[in-house]
Amino acid sequence: MEIAERTYILAPIGVIHSDLTNREAAPRQGYEGAPDAWVEVFSAVADGLLGVRAGDEIIVITWLDRAQRDTLQVHPGRRPDAPLTGVFAARSPDRPNPIGLHRVTVLEIAGFRLKVGPIEAIDGTPVIDIKPVLSRSNDA
Amino acid sequence: MEIAERTYILAPIGVIHSDLTNREAAPRQGYEGAPDAWVEVFSAVADGLLGVRAGDEIIVITWLDRAQRDTLQVHPGRRPDAPLTGVFAARSPDRPNPIGLHRVTVLEIAGFRLKVGPIEAIDGTPVIDIKPVLSRSNDA
Repeated sequence: MEIAERTYILAPIGVIHSDLTNREAAPRQGYEGAPDAWVEVFSAVADGLLGVRAGDEIIVITWLDRAQRDTLQVHPGRRPDAPLTGVFAARSPDRPNPIGLHRVTVLEIAGFRLKVGPIEAIDGTPVIDIKPVLSRSNDA
Repeated sequence: MEIAERTYILAPIGVIHSDLTNREAAPRQGYEGAPDAWVEVFSAVADGLLGVRAGDEIIVITWLDRAQRDTLQVHPGRRPDAPLTGVFAARSPDRPNPIGLHRVTVLEIAGFRLKVGPIEAIDGTPVIDIKPVLSRSNDA
């Protein structure tokens, strides 16, 4: 079997609840005026939250399920006049595996829900992982 | 359909070629003495590399295919005496979706291969995405 043919199954560990409901209205990055939102962690994996505290800097990793997976080059920043750029040199959500990285602060914890922000992910976006920021590497 | 039941298919966009061949021997983080390695990007998605240049700071995102996906709590740092911690508050490779984030420098480009480092991922690890570091957010 050629290595490229092996695929893997992602099972979301949670979901974003946000007032942002459509991609066009969402800021491109968290620091561009994005709101706070709630990350709901599913009960089946909620034991993984032990040690997450308000005030923590974390990386929320999402699956941008409304992205185009067959896009390999884009005009970055939604600017048609920007030079064509490969998706691996851009932060476009459109890419073969539409993974979103969101560095945020944990603002509040309520049960299995984390209030975080600022975050540009839209309502209903699946969350696939949460990691602490490594201060040494300034992450990722 | 409950949202938790929806799953997604990840198709690797490349693979790590490294002298590190087993998980036990690998450093836990790139800055802990990890070597340089090559990222081979598969030809089907190589158009996505347009604009990636030597000297760039990038985030290589891997699928840690040798991790345990049913682990929800760990003793971080491979220290049995460390307090039990949820995987979402730890950087253990063992977690429901074993995604690895590696902030590295592009040292050299040869065709569809990028020499990057330092990186603690072991030989044969699937690569699922590559993103530029955002200087504004210091990423991710």
